[in-house]
Amino acid sequence: MSVSIFDSFLTTTDMIAVFDDAAIVQGMFRFEQGLAAAQAAEGLVPHAAARAIAGVCNAQLYDIPALIAASRRAGSLAIPLVKELTNTVALYDKDSAAFVHWGSTSQDVVDTALVLATREALTLLDAGLAQLTDTLLALAEAHIDTPVLARTLMQPAQVTSLGWKVLGWAAPLLRARERLRDAAGRALRLQLGGAVGTLAVMGEAGDAVARRLADDLGLQVADAPWHTQRDEWVRLGLEVAVMTGSLGKIATDLSLMAQGEIGELAEPSGNGRGGSSAMPHKRNPVSAMIALAAAGRTPQHAASLLAMMGQQHERGLGNWQAELAEWPPLFISAHGALQALNDAFGALTVDTGRMRRNIDALQGLIFAEALSIGLAEYIGRPAAHEFVEGLTRRVVAEGRHLADLLPEAVSSSDALRDRCDLASLQALFDPVAAASSARRLAVRQLARLREEAASLNMEPTQ
Amino acid sequence: MSVSIFDSFLTTTDMIAVFDDAAIVQGMFRFEQGLAAAQAAEGLVPHAAARAIAGVCNAQLYDIPALIAASRRAGSLAIPLVKELTNTVALYDKDSAAFVHWGSTSQDVVDTALVLATREALTLLDAGLAQLTDTLLALAEAHIDTPVLARTLMQPAQVTSLGWKVLGWAAPLLRARERLRDAAGRALRLQLGGAVGTLAVMGEAGDAVARRLADDLGLQVADAPWHTQRDEWVRLGLEVAVMTGSLGKIATDLSLMAQGEIGELAEPSGNGRGGSSAMPHKRNPVSAMIALAAAGRTPQHAASLLAMMGQQHERGLGNWQAELAEWPPLFISAHGALQALNDAFGALTVDTGRMRRNIDALQGLIFAEALSIGLAEYIGRPAAHEFVEGLTRRVVAEGRHLADLLPEAVSSSDALRDRCDLASLQALFDPVAAASSARRLAVRQLARLREEAASLNMEPTQ
Amino acid sequence: MSVSIFDSFLTTTDMIAVFDDAAIVQGMFRFEQGLAAAQAAEGLVPHAAARAIAGVCNAQLYDIPALIAASRRAGSLAIPLVKELTNTVALYDKDSAAFVHWGSTSQDVVDTALVLATREALTLLDAGLAQLTDTLLALAEAHIDTPVLARTLMQPAQVTSLGWKVLGWAAPLLRARERLRDAAGRALRLQLGGAVGTLAVMGEAGDAVARRLADDLGLQVADAPWHTQRDEWVRLGLEVAVMTGSLGKIATDLSLMAQGEIGELAEPSGNGRGGSSAMPHKRNPVSAMIALAAAGRTPQHAASLLAMMGQQHERGLGNWQAELAEWPPLFISAHGALQALNDAFGALTVDTGRMRRNIDALQGLIFAEALSIGLAEYIGRPAAHEFVEGLTRRVVAEGRHLADLLPEAVSSSDALRDRCDLASLQALFDPVAAASSARRLAVRQLARLREEAASLNMEPTQ
Amino acid sequence: MSVSIFDSFLTTTDMIAVFDDAAIVQGMFRFEQGLAAAQAAEGLVPHAAARAIAGVCNAQLYDIPALIAASRRAGSLAIPLVKELTNTVALYDKDSAAFVHWGSTSQDVVDTALVLATREALTLLDAGLAQLTDTLLALAEAHIDTPVLARTLMQPAQVTSLGWKVLGWAAPLLRARERLRDAAGRALRLQLGGAVGTLAVMGEAGDAVARRLADDLGLQVADAPWHTQRDEWVRLGLEVAVMTGSLGKIATDLSLMAQGEIGELAEPSGNGRGGSSAMPHKRNPVSAMIALAAAGRTPQHAASLLAMMGQQHERGLGNWQAELAEWPPLFISAHGALQALNDAFGALTVDTGRMRRNIDALQGLIFAEALSIGLAEYIGRPAAHEFVEGLTRRVVAEGRHLADLLPEAVSSSDALRDRCDLASLQALFDPVAAASSARRLAVRQLARLREEAASLNMEPTQ
Repeated sequence: MSVSIFDSFLTTTDMIAVFDDAAIVQGMFRFEQGLAAAQAAEGLVPHAAARAIAGVCNAQLYDIPALIAASRRAGSLAIPLVKELTNTVALYDKDSAAFVHWGSTSQDVVDTALVLATREALTLLDAGLAQLTDTLLALAEAHIDTPVLARTLMQPAQVTSLGWKVLGWAAPLLRARERLRDAAGRALRLQLGGAVGTLAVMGEAGDAVARRLADDLGLQVADAPWHTQRDEWVRLGLEVAVMTGSLGKIATDLSLMAQGEIGELAEPSGNGRGGSSAMPHKRNPVSAMIALAAAGRTPQHAASLLAMMGQQHERGLGNWQAELAEWPPLFISAHGALQALNDAFGALTVDTGRMRRNIDALQGLIFAEALSIGLAEYIGRPAAHEFVEGLTRRVVAEGRHLADLLPEAVSSSDALRDRCDLASLQALFDPVAAASSARRLAVRQLARLREEAASLNMEPTQ
Repeated sequence: MSVSIFDSFLTTTDMIAVFDDAAIVQGMFRFEQGLAAAQAAEGLVPHAAARAIAGVCNAQLYDIPALIAASRRAGSLAIPLVKELTNTVALYDKDSAAFVHWGSTSQDVVDTALVLATREALTLLDAGLAQLTDTLLALAEAHIDTPVLARTLMQPAQVTSLGWKVLGWAAPLLRARERLRDAAGRALRLQLGGAVGTLAVMGEAGDAVARRLADDLGLQVADAPWHTQRDEWVRLGLEVAVMTGSLGKIATDLSLMAQGEIGELAEPSGNGRGGSSAMPHKRNPVSAMIALAAAGRTPQHAASLLAMMGQQHERGLGNWQAELAEWPPLFISAHGALQALNDAFGALTVDTGRMRRNIDALQGLIFAEALSIGLAEYIGRPAAHEFVEGLTRRVVAEGRHLADLLPEAVSSSDALRDRCDLASLQALFDPVAAASSARRLAVRQLARLREEAASLNMEPTQ
Repeated sequence: MSVSIFDSFLTTTDMIAVFDDAAIVQGMFRFEQGLAAAQAAEGLVPHAAARAIAGVCNAQLYDIPALIAASRRAGSLAIPLVKELTNTVALYDKDSAAFVHWGSTSQDVVDTALVLATREALTLLDAGLAQLTDTLLALAEAHIDTPVLARTLMQPAQVTSLGWKVLGWAAPLLRARERLRDAAGRALRLQLGGAVGTLAVMGEAGDAVARRLADDLGLQVADAPWHTQRDEWVRLGLEVAVMTGSLGKIATDLSLMAQGEIGELAEPSGNGRGGSSAMPHKRNPVSAMIALAAAGRTPQHAASLLAMMGQQHERGLGNWQAELAEWPPLFISAHGALQALNDAFGALTVDTGRMRRNIDALQGLIFAEALSIGLAEYIGRPAAHEFVEGLTRRVVAEGRHLADLLPEAVSSSDALRDRCDLASLQALFDPVAAASSARRLAVRQLARLREEAASLNMEPTQ
Repeated sequence: MSVSIFDSFLTTTDMIAVFDDAAIVQGMFRFEQGLAAAQAAEGLVPHAAARAIAGVCNAQLYDIPALIAASRRAGSLAIPLVKELTNTVALYDKDSAAFVHWGSTSQDVVDTALVLATREALTLLDAGLAQLTDTLLALAEAHIDTPVLARTLMQPAQVTSLGWKVLGWAAPLLRARERLRDAAGRALRLQLGGAVGTLAVMGEAGDAVARRLADDLGLQVADAPWHTQRDEWVRLGLEVAVMTGSLGKIATDLSLMAQGEIGELAEPSGNGRGGSSAMPHKRNPVSAMIALAAAGRTPQHAASLLAMMGQQHERGLGNWQAELAEWPPLFISAHGALQALNDAFGALTVDTGRMRRNIDALQGLIFAEALSIGLAEYIGRPAAHEFVEGLTRRVVAEGRHLADLLPEAVSSSDALRDRCDLASLQALFDPVAAASSARRLAVRQLARLREEAASLNMEPTQ
């Protein structure tokens, strides 16, 4: 495993495998094999050499820990790998050995191997996003009529529709899915520049070699080597960070709504999930936990990508190496968070009764604004505001429900007694009615997001 | 001035003005005025109220420091501003006062005011990018034939074309300009959701009000209020950070090439610029300094945006406020960096003689690879490699130039003496020839980038 | 004001004043005046020159905005300031002008001015910490017997003592106060190294000048100029960040306990504080908000200090400037957070009744572990665990309180019926008893912390 | 290996081993074994149970990958570990199984295991710091008389002593060593609080159990559980980050001085170290590279520790887990950087000739200030300044050395011709003399630092 024990339970085995030592090394061999083949096709190296190289470009033939150990002295993984590859080719075919890695540089092979791994990583994220957005859209639809407290500044504020709230979670994930594809389309490029980014050794054939190699690896060519111009690459990493931020927003809300004292949502339990040996009543929100951990760490990992952009001249000293090392953690956290939320929302408990009781517990105060507007029709805003303010003071002082105080207050008011329709005022205290504005917005937004989701599901990735 | 003394010399007065207290407050008044007008047009508030509000929506009428002082207790700038606006309207027209800020929430007005300021800020960045890319493309064209050392891992490596190097700086800035526009197109949206993002108070007219207000402010409407879904907004901030990173890359190279011991580039001097009172020989690269300072700080500011994404429920506690406060510094640093580089490149000294001398000082060793390839035609790669290795050892030991050792070495070699064309080998030591691969890439890339620049210059922003 | 409108309500006017333009400039003049005086005392400059310089070292004589404007070209605030000071001295005494800033460098004066401002800033923090820790210790004492839910992973877990919880908040602040003083003792040093940190111009008198100047400014001398060795300075900044982190922990708990649905704590309200115009029931926790905003931003500001440590050679390019600019925000956020919590805790509402009801609402499940341990005395652990597990399932299924189910269950159990003391088992459900372990720890810790606080209050700062 | 392939060559096998899965798991078993023993000694659990538990507290008996896989569902590594330990004890002794982990919580065991690993990690850092500071002090002593260019804002400024420069590198490392010990003394504490930090289950014996367990593990007890009060722990992590920052400063200077065009220092080469296959002249500074990579990443890792301090209530959700995961990378980067610099400085090439030539290449301009001061004795400062300014203009224009222009200029000056001692003026151009101020400071500082180093070498760590 290529992550620490403290990381391993915050991610998925699938994503660990993508950035595993063997996977990266195999990606490097794919580059070397493809490079030789492309150069042979362009007449730069003998076909026999390309075949000889292809024959031993297999990570399983090599002692990966030894390569890593040697990379410490060399300052690059590519140097010992190329050396071992050259030696291995030479065992079979001495003449061909000289054509290994020809005209290329360490960064070409390492960057391209990381591009290949990243393509796999993005496929995992895309699938996870598809699943989570589908789940959320279904959840939103199911609860488009469910009233739930809206909360601002961590205080109950008014009533909204649970469906509308859930669509607020879904929309950024649909955007994330689309933008990750866009960013991938621009960043997943072959790296091939040779020693100083001029492809000097390959002469006029450089372009053709690059095109052939890119085709072979299923990548696009870049307009120019991006050895020290990392902007597109960094943008892709930042998109992952934005996605993780949006997952963190969902996890924040989930963890708050899952608090025992609020109890509106609960993660699935049972089967060793989120239990506590000492406290049988506890149902720990472990999915939210994983997503929050990811959202807490990822901004700093993203900052490292930005901080390392000032790579010197034609190839950087230290900053490229730091950027590489900060890259996998972005994806490892992101996929952990994404799949944790898929676990949670795949079997979420929604307690609509509790949602209603939480609304009721506020004694009608959250309807005060609506009441004030309702009364303004009869007595104008200033008087309505004053009237309601008086009532809310009584609610707090007497511990009674605003709706219960209303009839008496209306009948004691000369201005209101005979003019207003008490029934229609009391209807303002109906949570479902209160959620109707949110519901209206949700209906339209749900249609829009379903369309987007369908379109994303149809398009092939990358 | 709304930045500290330690920030003020790292930025521009133009950008300081964009995020100035008065500018933000005026943006808030523009929102309030526009909201009332839109609501009047939709029949939600009397036209007289809209006119009364419009009449006093002028920052100059208010005591901004007092508003700020009051915002400390209120926890929001909007609360005292709305209160003062309401009081001021009431001075002239008591009935209209009740319609101030109607159906809106603090975050609606603050976010929208920041959107308006950000639009101005982006106009400044766009213009600065246009200028810098034009300058760099002209510089690249002028020096497409100029050989300069390429350096990797902070060591001289081979020869490249200065034009090619400069195009490496220009391309990310053209991308930045395009992406900033894209991101702005998605992020510069009206914020209008009311207390909990449901526009509940405005009923069915909410949509129409939003459209009218957006039109009035020249903004687009959002699919949904983005009170706690900050992804598009954060992406815009991250684009600014990526741009700053690309500026930092340029500044890194510039500062390295401007070192007294290398002396290939120099920033303009004179007129109080970058001088040192005690050391008359010094020409401090103050533009690089400013850009490096920006590139050093911005990644962390960007991380704050990401870190604050987990905004709770319908409106966040603390994270929204932190995000707001971290927003202007991104632009303030970025414009400082951009204009500093415009200053530097607008009157850059390019010392092509020094570039040539720096190449020469390496005694031909940087041509060893080319020589090895050249000799391989005659004696195969392994023998060529061995032959060159022997020569390079002598270069180091004897302190002589590789080209000077070559004739004698060739004539002492049985394998080479009569077979190889010494003149063509010696041509490999010509820096201009060595830069020809880079030149070829540069010619094509220059054309491509000129086209992109022209297209960007033609399109209107936002 | 030297902070943006989005920062101004998150901090205090006192701290803004500390880092105000005029304050920093005056600090620079204090340095220049003191330097000349020290040099005169050591015979390096004429006494008349020192007097002439002292006569005009007054920020009010200068056009600060003009100095700042000139600092943009110069790349340093010190250069125009020294120039203006020199010109001003020359107006009165031409010969003395040559002795301004003699043997010193820009960074000497700027760093020292910032040290002087930081000393003021630390005095503010120390006083704020003293106040907040005193308040918290009193609160802890008052509530050492108050049972409150302990919560883990955002779920109610068991019962603790509110006093113990509050001591958990207080202890890190006492440590912060002590460590800030330690760090200040090491970091608040005179900066004086001359052009390249060798004090070359002053010859053998350099040391004596430094001692005199340090004495004059009330600072200590440094073992060596710290132009590019920023470790002690950065440590001081990091201590501020740790303190802010500890404030953020308090604010996190406060905001969670103040949620309407939990309602155990509330910030003071009234007088424009934390109100909401539209929602009269809301009592926004604006102090927690300010502290959370600080805690959200500060880690990144601290990271900038660390990221800027690689300052080149004898004086850095860009990184020093970035570090300076990131310095005041650390203190500005910290003092805002500290005083916000002083506001909140100075008039906190503690609802012990609600705390009890929140415990009761969990139907005795949080006492299941205690019950299991109690029963183990009679029937061994495995059987006790199984018995309690059965009961908790019934609690959940039947919605009854565990204590209510217990008598019947005991009497139906052959193993327990005649052996166990039901009354002592039921005593386990007493929240006060359940909090007794916490209380015991709290008593001892309170004494310890009071002693620490007393000792800190007695020692003079710095 | 528990780090990714991109991390592995940036660190040491020793540090990887410290945080290896097996090491952490074994630390957890040490805790569980010690806890049972301490509880047995206090009469809380049977001695037989403690023995039974001790018998199977051996990481090699367990399937670690299976534990990790189970930790994903559980949300904690401790839960499956305790479960497997319990099952394993039960295989041999059913009754004892109930006493496993008794009265403890997941975080107790995980935090304490990480404390134990961190103690090992700090021992490695301490040893590495001892070695590097010894090397640097020796280097400083050897070169206390060696003149080298001092550089400010990345421009040659004046002459300093190489020894003085090297002492500038050493001093922060001595401070780091001392502060790491201080911070370790405060942070390496037993974690033991039970479910909610009240040690409730152990009753009055809790304290005694904690003391015994701490003694057993060689740790100190904490005044209070630090489950969610992480300030001392974070401070320790920040000290590591400060140390890494100081290493980054050294690496920055080393990389700049090792540039081919400057060539004053070079890292050791040969034996696969820092070579380049294609470019035989290159000697890549791979040690500087590793240290720069660490210094580039670490600030963000440190920021994560600070950002995660707001841990909720009695145990945090997500933030504790994120903090754990960010902890090992701090040490992994730091030790990589430290040992890389030990490699580099252990066999550094110092080219004093090149240092002299780099001084000479500046044509005496860096002595202009000294010359001006020298001349002021004869003609006063203003005239001296003007005279020198004229000369420096000629140096630049005519490409001659200032010392060469001086005799003629003196003899053409009526004011100077007969009054000044040309020889003593020309002595100002002697680099050794120019470095004498620095040398004087260095002599004193060297003695001071040697004393500190000796004292640190004598004290036992922790």
